[in-house]
Amino acid sequence: MDKYKVIEVKESIFADNDKDADKLRAQLKEQGTFLLNLMSSPGSGKTTTLKAVLERIKDKINVGVMEADIDSDVDAAAIQDIGVRSIQLHTGGMCHLDADMTRQGINEFGTDNMDMVVLENVGNLVCPAEFDTGAVKNAMILSVPEGHDKPLKYPLVFTVCDILIINKIDVMPYFDFDMAKVEEYAHMRNPDLKIFPISAKTGEGVDALCDWLLEQVAEWKK
Amino acid sequence: MDKYKVIEVKESIFADNDKDADKLRAQLKEQGTFLLNLMSSPGSGKTTTLKAVLERIKDKINVGVMEADIDSDVDAAAIQDIGVRSIQLHTGGMCHLDADMTRQGINEFGTDNMDMVVLENVGNLVCPAEFDTGAVKNAMILSVPEGHDKPLKYPLVFTVCDILIINKIDVMPYFDFDMAKVEEYAHMRNPDLKIFPISAKTGEGVDALCDWLLEQVAEWKK
Repeated sequence: MDKYKVIEVKESIFADNDKDADKLRAQLKEQGTFLLNLMSSPGSGKTTTLKAVLERIKDKINVGVMEADIDSDVDAAAIQDIGVRSIQLHTGGMCHLDADMTRQGINEFGTDNMDMVVLENVGNLVCPAEFDTGAVKNAMILSVPEGHDKPLKYPLVFTVCDILIINKIDVMPYFDFDMAKVEEYAHMRNPDLKIFPISAKTGEGVDALCDWLLEQVAEWKK
Repeated sequence: MDKYKVIEVKESIFADNDKDADKLRAQLKEQGTFLLNLMSSPGSGKTTTLKAVLERIKDKINVGVMEADIDSDVDAAAIQDIGVRSIQLHTGGMCHLDADMTRQGINEFGTDNMDMVVLENVGNLVCPAEFDTGAVKNAMILSVPEGHDKPLKYPLVFTVCDILIINKIDVMPYFDFDMAKVEEYAHMRNPDLKIFPISAKTGEGVDALCDWLLEQVAEWKK
C-alpha cells in the first residue's frame, strides 16, 4: 500500500456551508459512498475505536479514513498500518472541518468506489458540532474518564449526533462514571441518540457498533 | 455566601485582542490580582484540580474563580460549595474567551481585593490557546487517559502555557501513558514548560503546584 497522502485543507470560500454540505451529500449519494463524521474530545480514543471497527469490517466493504489534525500524521499512519487506505488532512490551526474541506479529502479517494469513508474530525467538542461536513451520519465518542456530565456542558454536539459511543468502559471501576446519568443527560439533548458502550481496547461492544454501521451503509446505497 | 452569579459574556468589540489583553494585565497589576488562565480538554479534571488546590490555599490568600462554560453552572456550584467565591461565565456557544469577556468577569469581583483569580476556560485544546485572555500565566491540564501524544497534535496550547499539569496519575497503571514521552514532546513545543504530575483525586503532587502558585502571586504583587 502506498504511503497515505497529506493534504493541507483550506477554509471554504463558500458563504453558505449548509448548502455546500447538502451538495456534497448529493454527490456521495450518487457515488454510493456513506460518510461518517466522527467527533470527540482529544484523547477519547477516536483512532483506537476506528482501528477496532475497521479490523472487523475492512474485508466486508471498501472503506477509507480521512484523519483531520492541526498538525502531525500519527493517526493516518496508524490506520494505514492495519491496511486501510487513509488520508491526512491538515487544517493549519483550524478547529473544525467544513463541507468544502471535507470534499477536498473525499475527492482524493478518486474513483476508488468507496462504500464508506470515515472523517475523524479535530478533537474538540465545540466547533466541529457547528459545521455540517456533508456527512450522512454524525457520531461522537465520550470516554469514561471524561465524566458523565459532558452533555450538560457541551450541548450542541450531543444534539447533532446520531450515535454516541461511550468508550473505555473497561476502566469504569476506576472512575466515578454513572452510565444511567450520562444516558439521561444525553437523551435530554437528543431523545433519538443511539448509545453504544464499548471498549476499543478489549473489543467489548464493538460488534454491535459494526452491525449498525454496515446497516447504515447498505441503507445509503439503496 | 451568596449564590454565585451567572454572566452571559459577549464577544469583544475590540479588533485588537492582544492590545486589550495587555490593558487588562496592566489593570490587574495595579490592583494586585494574579490571573491564571486554566485550559484543557473536556473532562481532564479542571474543576477537581481547582478544588484540590483551593482547599489548600483559600485560607492563605483571597482567591476567586471564574467558570467559563457554554451552558450549565455545575462547575461554579462545585467551587462555591467549598467556600470559594465563584462566577459563572456563559459564552453562548463560543469556544473560547477573549480579554474583554475575561474583563467582564474580573470586574464582577469589584472591590474584593482578590490576590488571585483563576479563569477556568472552555474545555477545548484548540481555540482558547489562540486568544490572550489578559492572564498573567497560562496553565493547562493533560490527563493520563488522554494519552501522551497530545503535544504532537495540539501544538499551540503547549507553546503558550507556562505550566503543564498532568492529572489522574493515580490511574497510570490502567493506561498506556509514557511520562517520559509526554515530557519530551511537550518540551519540543516549549522548552520552558514546567511540568507538575498530580492526582487531584488522591492529592498527590498538589502541594508542589500550590507552592508554585503562591510564589507567582507573591511575585506579581511586588
